[in-house]
Amino acid sequence: MPFNLSLAGRAAAGLKRSVPAIDRVNGRWLHAGGEQYLNFAGNDYLGLSRAPELQAASEQAARDYGVGAVASPLVVGHQAIHRELEAELCDWLGLEAVMLFSSGFSANQAVVKALLGKEHTLWQDRLNHASLQEAGLLSPARLVRFAHNDMAALEGRLRPSAGLIVSEGVFSMDGDTAPWPELVKLARQSGNWLMIDDAHGLGVLGNEGRGTLDEQGLAPTSVNIFMGTFGKALGVSGAFVGGSRALVEYLHNFGRSYIYSTHLPPPQAAAVLAAVRLVRRADDKRAHLRNLVSQFRAGVAALPLQLLPSATAIQPLVVGEEAATLALAAALKQQGLWTGAIRPPTVPKGSARLRITLSAAHTEADVQRLIDALHSAL
Amino acid sequence: MPFNLSLAGRAAAGLKRSVPAIDRVNGRWLHAGGEQYLNFAGNDYLGLSRAPELQAASEQAARDYGVGAVASPLVVGHQAIHRELEAELCDWLGLEAVMLFSSGFSANQAVVKALLGKEHTLWQDRLNHASLQEAGLLSPARLVRFAHNDMAALEGRLRPSAGLIVSEGVFSMDGDTAPWPELVKLARQSGNWLMIDDAHGLGVLGNEGRGTLDEQGLAPTSVNIFMGTFGKALGVSGAFVGGSRALVEYLHNFGRSYIYSTHLPPPQAAAVLAAVRLVRRADDKRAHLRNLVSQFRAGVAALPLQLLPSATAIQPLVVGEEAATLALAAALKQQGLWTGAIRPPTVPKGSARLRITLSAAHTEADVQRLIDALHSAL
Repeated sequence: MPFNLSLAGRAAAGLKRSVPAIDRVNGRWLHAGGEQYLNFAGNDYLGLSRAPELQAASEQAARDYGVGAVASPLVVGHQAIHRELEAELCDWLGLEAVMLFSSGFSANQAVVKALLGKEHTLWQDRLNHASLQEAGLLSPARLVRFAHNDMAALEGRLRPSAGLIVSEGVFSMDGDTAPWPELVKLARQSGNWLMIDDAHGLGVLGNEGRGTLDEQGLAPTSVNIFMGTFGKALGVSGAFVGGSRALVEYLHNFGRSYIYSTHLPPPQAAAVLAAVRLVRRADDKRAHLRNLVSQFRAGVAALPLQLLPSATAIQPLVVGEEAATLALAAALKQQGLWTGAIRPPTVPKGSARLRITLSAAHTEADVQRLIDALHSAL
Repeated sequence: MPFNLSLAGRAAAGLKRSVPAIDRVNGRWLHAGGEQYLNFAGNDYLGLSRAPELQAASEQAARDYGVGAVASPLVVGHQAIHRELEAELCDWLGLEAVMLFSSGFSANQAVVKALLGKEHTLWQDRLNHASLQEAGLLSPARLVRFAHNDMAALEGRLRPSAGLIVSEGVFSMDGDTAPWPELVKLARQSGNWLMIDDAHGLGVLGNEGRGTLDEQGLAPTSVNIFMGTFGKALGVSGAFVGGSRALVEYLHNFGRSYIYSTHLPPPQAAAVLAAVRLVRRADDKRAHLRNLVSQFRAGVAALPLQLLPSATAIQPLVVGEEAATLALAAALKQQGLWTGAIRPPTVPKGSARLRITLSAAHTEADVQRLIDALHSAL
């Protein structure tokens, strides 16, 4: 047999992953094994996955268009509902053009593969998402990973007009944000392109939820490539890439996972469209979420664990060792609270953590329960 | 500016792609620019994208689970509806275990990336889908592309126990099938693994629509890795990879686009589940489709164009030059018929073609209209 599928090494190191037996996630509640838990592990930051507006839009599109696009976008898959979603995204973010992908993973791979040749350099933050890291490793471009959010380190390694700098808006496992005014300055000074992956900032930060750039006083057009996803604050699944019309037309021609994939199902596109419309008016939900974040951070400040500096919905408590992290998650589970235990290689060795996520669907009482349970478990 | 986004070269060569302005695909009908066309360009081979059973399942899941899974599968995204779909796929195909992906593109990339190191060889048919070709190019494994369906060429280049042989069940742009009994024999003799991408065979061929292997008298377990998609005969979107439990557990640990993507939306999983149940009992639809294929092939046999040897829903008429292909598609459009004009680099240079796809949703009168229009246009 040419392949070794043994997971014994991973299991011995406490790193074997398996799919948990969950019955149903229903907003702030998670049902598993006949029990009900408060859910602090998902990415439904505004609680939209259960919004009636999204369900109604999804149902209407299933009736109008059917449940699938059943063709790739350049054949006959791209229909009016997809164009409506693209127009709404452009209007929301002030972008000239956008295009839709099945997943953020596909979107990031398509962009890096289509744009960068072996003559280019890809500079990326060491904590960028796996999809970007993998795109970099698979690209023929020279890959430079700089220390997390370290602008001096980046500046020292930049070369003029040589490629693309990419960072996340909000880092998925740490919850902190990149310093975008400095990134924009460094990109302009060096004549390089700049890309944001704002999967975890979009909807949560900024005016109308426009994301990390807006939160930091920048227009989404301050970067050359704006990538966002539909599976976090927007409550659905999928992703988009936006920028100039020239960029998007180029990617229509060379973005292989776009060209050669069945297009987004119309009910999914319709649900995302409804979600964007809700998100733009959701200042109340964002304010509530910010209050919950403050409440949580104040409540756990005295714990003997490192709470990472994050003002976003992602509030990681670094435990360190894998076994201790799993034990803490299990203790919380005993008290009816479900949190994500994140281990290497998703995070650096020795920094296993509870990735606690808050949502506008939570109440203050929910967050207090979590705070109390953490104090009692430790 | 570090990147050249000009499409002038592509445009001059007649190869520039753009997204067509389609309003809505409604089974056999396609609406665009206020006109209605018979649709011979999609992959909805059984017409299921408009089936009421799929719509009802999608709506019920949106109510029960919400419109998104809002987490990756290893965190809290994988819920009861996903397990039900996996169990149905296992039961249908006799597989030990399966796992779900957002797209076939992601599934193929994940498998190749997770399994093959630089010590391995990936043998693949020269006409395999772009997702497999790209996975091969991006993998550190030694890549061997063999002439289309040429078993002697493959045998001459095999090395013992060195890697993975992969082929499509039905080739997406030619419509022909690979010789699976010979592939299985060569894989076993050489001690290599074998993978099928049956995107275009699943649902259309074999008992209960089990696909190309079943059609050729083989069990789906004759291969080590069975990959199928949900966006063609099943009428929705997404994909799965199946095989032994050890394979699937390995990919849970190392399939990066699986681990790091938001899981399939519950309404999509529910629609696919309803589709599989319909497909298993859809012998009448498959018989109708086979009759339409025979009718079409007999009707165009006298045309001065090469009709590729295909017994499947994909019936390509090779025109040759790009401009002539576009002109023929435009002439058919004038007569109310929408076909896909497929050009390089999707197909080899000099083999631009109309990729005509038939569906069980078509009537004999629809196919006769297409035959008549082709005769009149030529």
